[in-house]
Amino acid sequence: MKTLLLKKEEVSRLISMREVIGTVEEAYKAFNSNQVEQPDYIGIHLPPPRGEIDFKLGYYKANEVISMKASSGGFNDNPTVYGVPSGMGTILLFDAKSCALICVMDGSLITGLRTGAAGAVSVKALARKNSRKVTSIGTGNQARMQIRAINEVMNIEEIHAWDNFPDTLAKYKTDIEGEFGIPVIMARSKKEAVEQADILITTTRGTGSLVEAEWVKPGTHIVAIGTDQQGKQELDPEIFRHAKIVNDSTGQCIEKGETWHPLNKKIITQNDIHGEIGEILLGNKPGRENDEEITIFDSTGMAIQDNTTAEKIYSNALDNGVGAFFEFC
Amino acid sequence: MKTLLLKKEEVSRLISMREVIGTVEEAYKAFNSNQVEQPDYIGIHLPPPRGEIDFKLGYYKANEVISMKASSGGFNDNPTVYGVPSGMGTILLFDAKSCALICVMDGSLITGLRTGAAGAVSVKALARKNSRKVTSIGTGNQARMQIRAINEVMNIEEIHAWDNFPDTLAKYKTDIEGEFGIPVIMARSKKEAVEQADILITTTRGTGSLVEAEWVKPGTHIVAIGTDQQGKQELDPEIFRHAKIVNDSTGQCIEKGETWHPLNKKIITQNDIHGEIGEILLGNKPGRENDEEITIFDSTGMAIQDNTTAEKIYSNALDNGVGAFFEFC
Repeated sequence: MKTLLLKKEEVSRLISMREVIGTVEEAYKAFNSNQVEQPDYIGIHLPPPRGEIDFKLGYYKANEVISMKASSGGFNDNPTVYGVPSGMGTILLFDAKSCALICVMDGSLITGLRTGAAGAVSVKALARKNSRKVTSIGTGNQARMQIRAINEVMNIEEIHAWDNFPDTLAKYKTDIEGEFGIPVIMARSKKEAVEQADILITTTRGTGSLVEAEWVKPGTHIVAIGTDQQGKQELDPEIFRHAKIVNDSTGQCIEKGETWHPLNKKIITQNDIHGEIGEILLGNKPGRENDEEITIFDSTGMAIQDNTTAEKIYSNALDNGVGAFFEFC
Repeated sequence: MKTLLLKKEEVSRLISMREVIGTVEEAYKAFNSNQVEQPDYIGIHLPPPRGEIDFKLGYYKANEVISMKASSGGFNDNPTVYGVPSGMGTILLFDAKSCALICVMDGSLITGLRTGAAGAVSVKALARKNSRKVTSIGTGNQARMQIRAINEVMNIEEIHAWDNFPDTLAKYKTDIEGEFGIPVIMARSKKEAVEQADILITTTRGTGSLVEAEWVKPGTHIVAIGTDQQGKQELDPEIFRHAKIVNDSTGQCIEKGETWHPLNKKIITQNDIHGEIGEILLGNKPGRENDEEITIFDSTGMAIQDNTTAEKIYSNALDNGVGAFFEFC
């Protein structure tokens, strides 16, 4: 029985961001079509200065693939002490018909790619069609990935960016302007940046409100990426009071997403959540209904996004003869 | 970063049963020394005629290795339809210091090996030193593995075997006599077999009592292997009433092991459980205390057994230059 092995460099050239946007849309629709099983993830937390490693399992009935992604993060000493990145990943794909192991691929890139694509999918479904200005609170790797993805689905005229660290912000400006030719305005304050936004992206590791409700103008679409576990927060919960709230998985978002905060403060109830993005993509619920409403997409990340994206990489590899086969048994 | 790949045939010759007995003893001691983290396992159940796939995660602080075993079973159409076994396995090993993936090995053999070794470890700790006769209720693969392991730790003079299927029983006799030179008596009834036992092994997939309490003579050591999930049963729960009950993990055994049945019938309370085998191996609790007591070892299987066994295979491979290296990243 042959298993395909794919290394990081191969993974990176086997899929385009446009394809990832497609696989993430497929994942969201599948999730809301009773085509997905995603058990709670399991993990090990190591003592500082180490981080954690998580194992996320997803089964997609339509493609008959079971995926398991092991991903580590927060091992801050890794680059200097061990010469490896602070976070790494491995994905196993099983043919669900026989449970044969069909692929082992490096999984370092997929989380970043499918999370970037999530933002773009939400922009297609929820942002004003005349959106031109993107504001980025946070200018790290995922902030760049959001631009890379959203740039595929709209014409970004300018980016207003803010970061706690001026050097990081300056590097972001240089990199984004170089890669995409989109002018980046380095904001002097978060307020100044947020007030410009047609689309507001938050990708920090923040643990408190960074964006105040009165800064957010009507019609803004907010892509809330950073908060994916208890203790993290990026938005003033008051923003949720009159917004259209859309989750990737409401089960996850009310437990560990940005949506937890306004629920916890009783600013909203669960009935105030508009729905899951898959419901909108399937046409079962409306997306944006006018140019005035504030929309929020709260993304916590799902195993099924890894599944559809990794399966696409695998099938692209087969189509193009990329990778090495190994017979484990 | 280099990852070692090991195929099934290499795994099979990289470790001896004697070494597995050692790694399982180490695992049990580690479990009772606060050296182990084993989150609840996660899995996917596929619709019939397919089976299930489970993912078991274990972290052993002393060797600083995190193991993840994916193992499937019950895919009964696999051999005829897909030309692969009905159950397969894959093990990933991570260096817990950096969470780098250090090894991917076939995991088809390890569950069988470490479960066989579990029986042998219990024989060392709990059987009468003058035990000579082994009775095997069930004569499938795991029944053979138990003999292979127990044969390493005692002198088996004869085996009394019973199986629902006469052909399976006859083949077991031929195979065991050929491999070990130990005479196998094919019992005409379970009662006849059990009455002979110094050591009684149950390895069926039974879902009801197979062994009645009055058949079990004083001084017998029972190795209860088959029951590892709700709905399975092999022993008359009355056997537990006056026996010395030892678990691998009491948390698991009272939930899904043979120990669940007498608890459920209120034949025993949790206080009647003598302890975990690691406590005996560490010298914190006595093992067998006289030649009259009936001892029961209820084994449900733990991720840490996979961890210590796979780590030994990995280090033996490095020592002997076996396997192929692959750079995923």
